Amino acid sequence: MDFTLPTTRLITDKLTINSERMRADFDQLSLIGAAPSGGINRLALSPEDLAARSWFANRIDDAGLIVRDDDAGNISAVLRSDRADARTLLIGSHLDTVPNAGRYDGAIGVLAALECLRVIHENDIRLPMHLEAINFTDDEGNWRSLLGCRALVGALQDDDISELRPENAPLRAALIRAGIEPRDLLRARRNPDSIAGYLELHVEHGTRLERAGVPIGIVTNIVGRSTHHITFIGQAGHSGTTDMYKRRDALRGAALFIVRAHEAVRARYGDGIFNCGDVVVKPGAFNIIPALARLTVECRHVNAALLAEMETTILSIARESAASYDLDVTTEKVTQMPAADMDPQWSDIIARCSDRLGYAHLPLVSYAGHAAQFLAHFTPSGMIFIPSKGGIGHHPDEYTEWEHVVAGANVLLHSILEWAQMS
Amino acid sequence: MDFTLPTTRLITDKLTINSERMRADFDQLSLIGAAPSGGINRLALSPEDLAARSWFANRIDDAGLIVRDDDAGNISAVLRSDRADARTLLIGSHLDTVPNAGRYDGAIGVLAALECLRVIHENDIRLPMHLEAINFTDDEGNWRSLLGCRALVGALQDDDISELRPENAPLRAALIRAGIEPRDLLRARRNPDSIAGYLELHVEHGTRLERAGVPIGIVTNIVGRSTHHITFIGQAGHSGTTDMYKRRDALRGAALFIVRAHEAVRARYGDGIFNCGDVVVKPGAFNIIPALARLTVECRHVNAALLAEMETTILSIARESAASYDLDVTTEKVTQMPAADMDPQWSDIIARCSDRLGYAHLPLVSYAGHAAQFLAHFTPSGMIFIPSKGGIGHHPDEYTEWEHVVAGANVLLHSILEWAQMS
Repeated sequence: MDFTLPTTRLITDKLTINSERMRADFDQLSLIGAAPSGGINRLALSPEDLAARSWFANRIDDAGLIVRDDDAGNISAVLRSDRADARTLLIGSHLDTVPNAGRYDGAIGVLAALECLRVIHENDIRLPMHLEAINFTDDEGNWRSLLGCRALVGALQDDDISELRPENAPLRAALIRAGIEPRDLLRARRNPDSIAGYLELHVEHGTRLERAGVPIGIVTNIVGRSTHHITFIGQAGHSGTTDMYKRRDALRGAALFIVRAHEAVRARYGDGIFNCGDVVVKPGAFNIIPALARLTVECRHVNAALLAEMETTILSIARESAASYDLDVTTEKVTQMPAADMDPQWSDIIARCSDRLGYAHLPLVSYAGHAAQFLAHFTPSGMIFIPSKGGIGHHPDEYTEWEHVVAGANVLLHSILEWAQMS
Repeated sequence: MDFTLPTTRLITDKLTINSERMRADFDQLSLIGAAPSGGINRLALSPEDLAARSWFANRIDDAGLIVRDDDAGNISAVLRSDRADARTLLIGSHLDTVPNAGRYDGAIGVLAALECLRVIHENDIRLPMHLEAINFTDDEGNWRSLLGCRALVGALQDDDISELRPENAPLRAALIRAGIEPRDLLRARRNPDSIAGYLELHVEHGTRLERAGVPIGIVTNIVGRSTHHITFIGQAGHSGTTDMYKRRDALRGAALFIVRAHEAVRARYGDGIFNCGDVVVKPGAFNIIPALARLTVECRHVNAALLAEMETTILSIARESAASYDLDVTTEKVTQMPAADMDPQWSDIIARCSDRLGYAHLPLVSYAGHAAQFLAHFTPSGMIFIPSKGGIGHHPDEYTEWEHVVAGANVLLHSILEWAQMS
């Protein structure tokens, strides 16, 4: 078989996605897990999430594409190349949501990927790569952040799913209820030599595109993220009778840490992000000196080395703050999501396709986590952002103009075609 | 009838409490609400607390004394004077406990009061005053701090028990389960003209007596205490995508408040006590900026005017801390326990009796709340402290040497006799 690029280019240059068909998909999908309040609840592995997967499988089947599912519950539409040695270009996102979510986050990326495959398939465009539109399991981390894509790239360990660790029990039960044997997750790993690249369309969840009046964001980097539990341990005592100068008040140390950590990150890590999202105090009464304060802490940075340095700084502030009040402190790393660079070739292609289609574009860093941050360490990866109104995400008010969805889907389509035509 | 003081003095000087009988009572009472862990659970109005009251009523009856109970569930042993116009000298404490409590707190005061009445009764000592050994309802504040003594002095308002306030529902249900009609609490008020004074024996819950090697503390003042909920209100947002300089992080404001309030109290109120015993954060996730942080805050001071000033300072620090991060703040006063001076005549009598019995004594401030802090505004009140080992209180390890209990009970006995002989 012969791939004459000039000919293909002539056909593909005029190609667009079918906006009405994709909109119909979007409206149907938005009904699955819709709460009366207007929010969407398709928590990973919930009945609503499973219903969305069934619906997706039916849409794939209707389009004459191949339904593929793997051992991690990732489900894909596949358009096979005729070439015997073809590798696979993955395009995808996720259909699962956080509780009380909006309609766009994740869903747009999966529906646009499917729509691209349909358009390419019905125009009988033959490519030297297989195309695979993938829905990743538990991208949002209802159980484990980015579970499905981590399984695919082989970033899951036996410890993550072993029945010997009690903290795995809820995830294991949810997988089994969904018909997935937990240990099989380790078999979902793909051979990197078989994968040609990864591309994802997603809403920005920020206001940079909106403020600039630009419809297309080209992601250059995804921030790394690490989360810790930091526990300050002092000694309980009667607040009225314990000497004010001999208290080992766990909350006082925790408060000093929160104040100092916020200051240090702003002073020393201009692009770093720090959040202390929760504190649990024990015993937790008016008249008892806090014996324990357990903090839920997150660091993000685009640069992997600076993220590691920031973590070191934060943990040493925790130790200093504890020492100020004669407290003990323990730290436990809960999650480590690597910082990732998107492939410059993808950035070039996305920019070129946007120009050709007449869409302005901006390079952007993603401060939210995405599957691409694991895939980038596995295969050349790219991300296309479209504006989200007011930057609202993880909320029923999340909104993207449909014309921006269409713009993003068309840039996705043309970027796929350019990449896929490279043998 | 004639009261010849010299004769009485001759008899009473040699009087002592019956240590073995009181110890037997103590051991029996310690079984009621005893947990396998060694802690005591006689939470006010619980089945265990009601069992302790029944047991107490039986002990009163066995001693040939009169059982009295009032509309607030306070239960007393009464030894009546023969005098027609006799007023009542109240002696007491509480049988209820905090969760997982020790055996001494409260219990010693009630048992010693009962023992004093028994000794006086069996020695046929006739006094110009009625003696009443009282057990106050919910002294520990399982439902409302010092509920029973507040009812007795008329410090309860209709609002405290009205069915129109939803926050009263749990207390009302507990009272009704215990056979007490909530509205009747307002009828438990005694006429101050009928009361001659109040005296209480209690463990110190501090280490001042232990460190000084002194068995008797004479309380001069009880700290006032006010408790507040202080709520910082910001705005939730995705921690990864919200500008670090535009966050309205409720927990950051709360942490700044905790740090500053601790510093201010130590810097400006040498004798003031401040505790922030709990924080509740919402929504409370790694990657969501805290929208709300609700603090549980307590101030104590011996001086009523300085306590009020301290509260004003604390609340203005809350407002300043909130303003630093563009937060709103609301404050709600939960409890106000007045500071109280013990009657100097009681101090003189306790000192004199201790000297006569050969016990060293120290004047002390009570940094814990006690019934006497309400009774002091109603009738001349006094308190006797005995050492508690290591200052441990509200804990199964609470311990007082039995010889100190006996010393305290004997000082109580003789102080009662001196006071009661004043017509």
